Amino acid sequence: MPGDELASVTEDRLIGGRVRLCQPAKGYRAAIDPVFLAAAMTVEPDETVLDLGCGVGAAGLCLLARQPLARVTGLELQAGMADLARRNGDANGHPPDRFKIVEGSALSPPPELTGGGFAHVMTNPPFQPPGRGTAPPEGSKALAHVESAGDLAAWVKAAARLLAPKGRLWVIHRADRLEELLAAFAGRGLGEVRVLPLWPKPGRAAGRVIVAARKGSRTPFALLPGLVLHRDDGGYSPAAESVLREAAAISWEG
Amino acid sequence: MPGDELASVTEDRLIGGRVRLCQPAKGYRAAIDPVFLAAAMTVEPDETVLDLGCGVGAAGLCLLARQPLARVTGLELQAGMADLARRNGDANGHPPDRFKIVEGSALSPPPELTGGGFAHVMTNPPFQPPGRGTAPPEGSKALAHVESAGDLAAWVKAAARLLAPKGRLWVIHRADRLEELLAAFAGRGLGEVRVLPLWPKPGRAAGRVIVAARKGSRTPFALLPGLVLHRDDGGYSPAAESVLREAAAISWEG
Repeated sequence: MPGDELASVTEDRLIGGRVRLCQPAKGYRAAIDPVFLAAAMTVEPDETVLDLGCGVGAAGLCLLARQPLARVTGLELQAGMADLARRNGDANGHPPDRFKIVEGSALSPPPELTGGGFAHVMTNPPFQPPGRGTAPPEGSKALAHVESAGDLAAWVKAAARLLAPKGRLWVIHRADRLEELLAAFAGRGLGEVRVLPLWPKPGRAAGRVIVAARKGSRTPFALLPGLVLHRDDGGYSPAAESVLREAAAISWEG
Repeated sequence: MPGDELASVTEDRLIGGRVRLCQPAKGYRAAIDPVFLAAAMTVEPDETVLDLGCGVGAAGLCLLARQPLARVTGLELQAGMADLARRNGDANGHPPDRFKIVEGSALSPPPELTGGGFAHVMTNPPFQPPGRGTAPPEGSKALAHVESAGDLAAWVKAAARLLAPKGRLWVIHRADRLEELLAAFAGRGLGEVRVLPLWPKPGRAAGRVIVAARKGSRTPFALLPGLVLHRDDGGYSPAAESVLREAAAISWEG
């Protein structure tokens, strides 16, 4: 049963203890992706932020640890995950007007979210493309796969629709799906597309990319130098350490 | 008149003097792009290579300087440029079965090229998108713009059609058009897409990208670490120097 694994929950800390995160011991678990995604965002006080497919709320909580005056809404399909996300919001002391969780489909969002448009949409889309790799396991991880149906294009389409004019989209994803991600941007009115690679080590192909875009902008595409995550000896690089432990921002300069 | 500028021709040397290149003194001039494109390619003896929109033949001549047993065909729309390309082939001592120039449109290639399919297509597509930036000047540069009609998608479509099954496409292009280039790959049967950024300096956004793809391959996309072209003081980096002067190969390891 999908609910079973929620019975076993761990409490973890992110960004040097700034974020407390309860999450299922099994299935998809937040690691460094939400920390890096939030660190790449520039959000002004009282701006609205939607975390599309928020899981237990890790990315939104990391954002609030950096910008406590953001107004974060998390959209999550699975009731058990949404419930954990709400509890995580409380545990981190965020009032409901700063951190709200809505249960529903990212691909077909509930009407309460489709009104005015968000200033920012942040998302860590489900990772596996359809029919590739091994079959997903049971439980919440499997459900996240079902939600996606591997359809990154539909995910991007939904995100673009939820943005206000000039609103910003922020995505972290596997680098080997960048081609598909950029193709999904076509025809969605998204400009100012910038790609920031996360390199696992010096001289190695990118493992993750953070991609930013702006609705209605015509600023050209840019490929940024990005960030090397690990030293050759396997430890985190100083740049990665300061993002992960000290809440440093990721620079889009280039 | 488009032909006028061909009256004034310079003779340049590429790859430490390995390639002699006559080209118009004005208009589009080959610089480091064809050298880097050729340096990124792996071509076996007697494999066929099409240089789509070859201009005065710089990229193909750089390739032959590295792999003298390749069979290069250049396709060029402008008669004056095609003529210079032929003369460049002679001046570099390549027999017609190793370096042949065909006059015609890249977007609507002549029948003699559409038969068997090339093992490789290399191309440095016209740079400017339509309606962006300043109007192109008169002459060969203007014609190159007309040929493209800014339609990178049509350029990629033509390239993909000219490839043999499992043939490889090699493109060098402005990094700010990578999004458009990758979108153009969609639905063309091109897999194993790899992006190799050329960074102008450490910590700066990519200026050029070399993109490789393989027809009919299902190998996933990869974003490679690429090459930094200049040191902070403005001189070429050691890696760039060895490509430009010593005919070093560009590695796709990562």
